[in-house]
Amino acid sequence: MTTHEMLLTAKAACPVLACADSESKNRALLAMADALITGQAEILAANRQDLEAAKGHISPVMLDRLALSEARIANMAEGIRQVAKLPDPVGQVLRRVERPNGIVIEKTAAAMGVVAIIYESRPNVTSDAAALALKSGNVCVLRGGKEAFSSANAIVTALKRGLAAAGMPETLVNLVQDTSRNSANELMEAVGLVDLLIPRGGAGLIRAVTENAKVPCIQTGTGICHIYVDASADLHKALDIIENAKASRPSVCNAEEVLLVHRDIAPEFLPRLRRRLQDDREAQGKPPVRLLADSEAHAILGTELAGPGDFDREFLDYILAVKLVSGVEEAIVHIALHSTGHSEAILTEDSEAAQRFCRLVDSAAVYVNASTRFTDGGEFGLGCEMGISTQKLHARGPMGLEELCTYKYIIHGDGQIR
Amino acid sequence: MTTHEMLLTAKAACPVLACADSESKNRALLAMADALITGQAEILAANRQDLEAAKGHISPVMLDRLALSEARIANMAEGIRQVAKLPDPVGQVLRRVERPNGIVIEKTAAAMGVVAIIYESRPNVTSDAAALALKSGNVCVLRGGKEAFSSANAIVTALKRGLAAAGMPETLVNLVQDTSRNSANELMEAVGLVDLLIPRGGAGLIRAVTENAKVPCIQTGTGICHIYVDASADLHKALDIIENAKASRPSVCNAEEVLLVHRDIAPEFLPRLRRRLQDDREAQGKPPVRLLADSEAHAILGTELAGPGDFDREFLDYILAVKLVSGVEEAIVHIALHSTGHSEAILTEDSEAAQRFCRLVDSAAVYVNASTRFTDGGEFGLGCEMGISTQKLHARGPMGLEELCTYKYIIHGDGQIR
Repeated sequence: MTTHEMLLTAKAACPVLACADSESKNRALLAMADALITGQAEILAANRQDLEAAKGHISPVMLDRLALSEARIANMAEGIRQVAKLPDPVGQVLRRVERPNGIVIEKTAAAMGVVAIIYESRPNVTSDAAALALKSGNVCVLRGGKEAFSSANAIVTALKRGLAAAGMPETLVNLVQDTSRNSANELMEAVGLVDLLIPRGGAGLIRAVTENAKVPCIQTGTGICHIYVDASADLHKALDIIENAKASRPSVCNAEEVLLVHRDIAPEFLPRLRRRLQDDREAQGKPPVRLLADSEAHAILGTELAGPGDFDREFLDYILAVKLVSGVEEAIVHIALHSTGHSEAILTEDSEAAQRFCRLVDSAAVYVNASTRFTDGGEFGLGCEMGISTQKLHARGPMGLEELCTYKYIIHGDGQIR
Repeated sequence: MTTHEMLLTAKAACPVLACADSESKNRALLAMADALITGQAEILAANRQDLEAAKGHISPVMLDRLALSEARIANMAEGIRQVAKLPDPVGQVLRRVERPNGIVIEKTAAAMGVVAIIYESRPNVTSDAAALALKSGNVCVLRGGKEAFSSANAIVTALKRGLAAAGMPETLVNLVQDTSRNSANELMEAVGLVDLLIPRGGAGLIRAVTENAKVPCIQTGTGICHIYVDASADLHKALDIIENAKASRPSVCNAEEVLLVHRDIAPEFLPRLRRRLQDDREAQGKPPVRLLADSEAHAILGTELAGPGDFDREFLDYILAVKLVSGVEEAIVHIALHSTGHSEAILTEDSEAAQRFCRLVDSAAVYVNASTRFTDGGEFGLGCEMGISTQKLHARGPMGLEELCTYKYIIHGDGQIR
């Protein structure tokens, strides 16, 4: 089936989901979870094919992301079951007004229609995205990475078996068969067929979507996250937060990439920082964090000098760019010029500085005295996540089921005219 | 000043508005309203220039839209004062959670930043848009039509005087000086400088924006609105609603353009419809409504035959396309294929048919037994309106102050790490 045919099929399936009640959707989700377990032999076999083909072409980290096991499939099934337990957003009345003329206006959450997701090699995204789309009443068109195609295809085959077992059309979950750039472009340009496109991937994919997409999109993921240590910060807490934000999982988008330090405390703080992130970690057998410093910070730290571009780079590694600033105002300006709008934190005991930072930093999540690593659907209490939006239109930050919905106004009258 | 320089200036002004409290914004709005009144001689003189230049080039209806008077300027000032009275959306906490680890997450409404508005010749849009943007914390960049440039420029000059009088920077309200297509394209492509673009205009402008825009947009306005008369409809109410929806103000986007009638009641209903929309109106000295009928309806009505394309046309005139259908399902399918997603109504006494219509019609406003003319910010109780969104992302239907805002998560902790 061509991508265009798949989109037509998906669009045609929308009314079925729009009319499905929560119970039928949850029944379908549980059947999809069961089908992953009963189909795990096929899924693992397909995954071995992907792994064989990828060996030597992609890094060990990427190979690990790609690899499935019985335990990982069980986790995927459990993830789907969790989605079944979440409240159904569709049909919720967000606001209700009765007007003086007697018409009753209900602003009601509604499915988007066809949601397309372009993602890379993690196979679990396939089942997560399918479950979240279904629960939010959306027909999904998934377009995964080339390296994971066999795995994704086996997973979608199992999910479709689950849908059929629950009496739902298999066309509610779809995997694009063409993994060339063509199919991604086709999704970006399918005006009228794709109601929402969510690109999940690196800066290159996001840029391509910004440049080329004609359908509504939500950009996700790229995170050049900043932490600013104010002169009034509790330096003990600051060390804990910075180590956590940088080094607990450096490959994720909510990890810290840039540290801004108030000039007045730098002589005391920076040597402690170097000990914490380098000496202490080495002593504990953990990977040390490379510190790329601007010239001022370098004069104190004596580590590496930051190159041009190091304050605009998502390292996704044990690397931190460090710069001194004169205070909260300069920190805010630096962030405005270099941030991707994901997550930023101020560490301070000065409530005025905190308030100014929160008001003026234009990012999805702005923290006072906590790690940027909390920017996550689960940590925010949404129960799930379809990605983290770094745009301002529609959804910002972690996207749960509500963010996958639009709304419409439903108005009841008994003959009113204007 | 070039458009690019204006955008840089606008972006630089954003922090001032982001930090302004409601009181200062309201004071600025009242000063802007006063400045329109004290500046009315200059505004009227500029408007006469526009009218002179436009005479002979645009229709009398358009000339009337363009014309200002003391009374119209007083209305514009009153509109700004009304906006000052509305609640301030910025900073409102939309959701608050305290997580088990003690961090407090507040989902907080925030300004978009720079909002650009491309519109046509009605001068009052200039002051309305400026007031709504300011109240919602957004710096506006207005790009009006060529025909109204002198009027818009005089209005913006007055508004800037009001801003200055209230101690606010004049750069919070900006009018693009270039009215060629170039400036519109520049706004569409100003990634990073325009946070939201709202095109307000005809189908051509909306299409250009869909095709070319790289910045976040909200499409507004085009309305091919349908009314479906079910077999169970109260035909007396139906005649009132249809006449109101079609003929009370045919030039607006919430006016009805297409009438779908259940085949079973057509022999009784259509002759009554013709009498109401043609004979009765002529007898009352009102413009009759031309009825363009599909072949089946034509066999009963005996008026004009609809041509190809008449069911995909926004007439904005005393013209109604009429088609027979076999029931609510066929009505829903016709609407899915031909609607612009603005407003549709079902007239029925059958609650199941009504429910099915409301669930499956994928438009901003779906009515049961009321006129589509109610789709309007004022009628919906929003107090104001920046246009009517026909898209699903972010805002749908009438856009008030809340819809001009994004949100961000503000998280307070005392050292939490993940």
